[in-house]
Amino acid sequence: MYALKWFGSYLSLLDQTLLPAEEVYRRYDSVEGVHTAIRNMVVRGAPAIGVAAAYGMVFAARSCQPGEEFLPALEACADYLISARPTAVNLPWAVEKMLSTARNYLAISDEGAIHEELLTKLEQEAVRIHEEDKATSKAIGENLLSLLEPGNGVLTHCNAGALATTGYGTALAPFYLALERGFPLKIYVDETRPRLQGSRLTAFELEQAGADITLICDNMAAVVMSQGKIQACITGADRIAANGDTANKIGTFNVAILAKYFQIPFYVAAPASTIDMACSTGKDIPIEERDADEVRLVNGALICPPETNVYNPSFDVTPADLITAIVTEKSIIRSPFAKGLAEAAVRSRED
Amino acid sequence: MYALKWFGSYLSLLDQTLLPAEEVYRRYDSVEGVHTAIRNMVVRGAPAIGVAAAYGMVFAARSCQPGEEFLPALEACADYLISARPTAVNLPWAVEKMLSTARNYLAISDEGAIHEELLTKLEQEAVRIHEEDKATSKAIGENLLSLLEPGNGVLTHCNAGALATTGYGTALAPFYLALERGFPLKIYVDETRPRLQGSRLTAFELEQAGADITLICDNMAAVVMSQGKIQACITGADRIAANGDTANKIGTFNVAILAKYFQIPFYVAAPASTIDMACSTGKDIPIEERDADEVRLVNGALICPPETNVYNPSFDVTPADLITAIVTEKSIIRSPFAKGLAEAAVRSRED
Repeated sequence: MYALKWFGSYLSLLDQTLLPAEEVYRRYDSVEGVHTAIRNMVVRGAPAIGVAAAYGMVFAARSCQPGEEFLPALEACADYLISARPTAVNLPWAVEKMLSTARNYLAISDEGAIHEELLTKLEQEAVRIHEEDKATSKAIGENLLSLLEPGNGVLTHCNAGALATTGYGTALAPFYLALERGFPLKIYVDETRPRLQGSRLTAFELEQAGADITLICDNMAAVVMSQGKIQACITGADRIAANGDTANKIGTFNVAILAKYFQIPFYVAAPASTIDMACSTGKDIPIEERDADEVRLVNGALICPPETNVYNPSFDVTPADLITAIVTEKSIIRSPFAKGLAEAAVRSRED
Repeated sequence: MYALKWFGSYLSLLDQTLLPAEEVYRRYDSVEGVHTAIRNMVVRGAPAIGVAAAYGMVFAARSCQPGEEFLPALEACADYLISARPTAVNLPWAVEKMLSTARNYLAISDEGAIHEELLTKLEQEAVRIHEEDKATSKAIGENLLSLLEPGNGVLTHCNAGALATTGYGTALAPFYLALERGFPLKIYVDETRPRLQGSRLTAFELEQAGADITLICDNMAAVVMSQGKIQACITGADRIAANGDTANKIGTFNVAILAKYFQIPFYVAAPASTIDMACSTGKDIPIEERDADEVRLVNGALICPPETNVYNPSFDVTPADLITAIVTEKSIIRSPFAKGLAEAAVRSRED
């Protein structure tokens, strides 16, 4: 099983909206297709969205005419791809990497004659972003595992696992490493309404891997914490502001407040590419609001009167002061976050 | 629409497991039927369970043979009814009221000759408990409304409304009074997984009443609070210990911690009969754990792998220090709660 696989002429994505009932892989070979797959959450999870978008840019480049209009057309495709979802910064980050590759190449080359070479360069860059994502997952997992003790209970929210990246995941990466090493952990999985990424995806992938998991509803976190069952909380991130404020799946803020109340460490796991130095605080992070029917319908069936007024923010922002550490592939960054985040972001750009 | 109606020969209950898709009323005329209706949550909400159980005792008395074996047989029926659900104290409270009525009558009468009169007395007592519940709802609503300002945003969890009682509800009672008086409120309704009483019942009954409601998933409470949209939280209670620790629907504890973090008042609304002076703290309150499939299935469809390990406590206990006030029909009780709760409990027993 994989979230995403590159076949040169097309991109194969596991349709995560159908899990765990069905494992359906879909083929994409156009920027429009990738845009729709990201928007409709066929592929989701900030790192995986980034990789999918990089391949989306390969299709975009293949569809743009060589010549003077190439770069403006590619930039338009970039904007279009980025517009698929607003919160995860890995999406514009990966698209920008691809645009830079094109710009750098064109700046030093005669355009028309070597269009094929440019297309090859772009594909190579997308593959490099993809490979880097796999290595990043493992490094994040190593860093997180160093913060855990054998026998710990760990609560996670949403899905920041193998299905959200192209490797071991971010928040779930230490669980895969722990399984490989016989390091016992008890994992509590928030179901994560409304899209149920916890029950549909995290429970699914961790169960397949053989982990010791317990699924709970989001509103059971306090009682589980009060029973002394949780020694750490780990979640992913969609965008980290320069001060450490972190946007992640709706409900993460709740978990962080509960963890603070029970004095349980709360860790955010993410590639350094998730750090957005252009956002000074969480207030600058755009929060996607999604369709009310995501709340009103579960498996296509109504759970409330059909016209009920709904508020459905897809993300929330956890303030930095509720976060014990932000764990990237580069380092474990503790409060005050500004310096460590700036360093990690610089190292990420230099890679 | 009503949760519960008495027709002399039978009890009619709205099947709340089918709302809001279907409004189906079911007839009950046996203690076994009432026991099953309570266990399966056809009728739910601590006060309504109490009233249903009182009528269940009427059916029990009608089925027990007159004579020496009457009282032991009735006591066995009482135990059976009480075993339907463990957490709500209104259930044993109402059953005990009915048993006392029988015992008192038998203590001063010649049993055999006047069995019909005893049955009449028991029916009258059940009707009295029922009528009292209606008046209690209104008085709780008045007390709560005195704590709110026009324009306030109020968050509620689960369903402690008209469907949970036989009147205006407990936590929702002030919303009905506010509607009658043109007192504007914005009500945020937690959907309340796993049984979705918020989306299925609270959204349904408040929408029918014309209230201004917004449905959210349980994990959106922090973000809504952080936006300044909530000036008070109000929930019901299934059992209140002598020190103020309060058992209520799972997720209430989460809401109380969030309210504390955002310095928002957290009110518990309940009839004084919910106070259990036999429980000195929340540790003494039995917490019902329900079937894992309540979490795994929504509208009968799986939301996770079919064998996923699940923890499904149906209630949690909010510690007294997170509660701003406990609002009964008698009074508004503030911390430290012990004295006020003891007084309200005494007045409830004397009624």
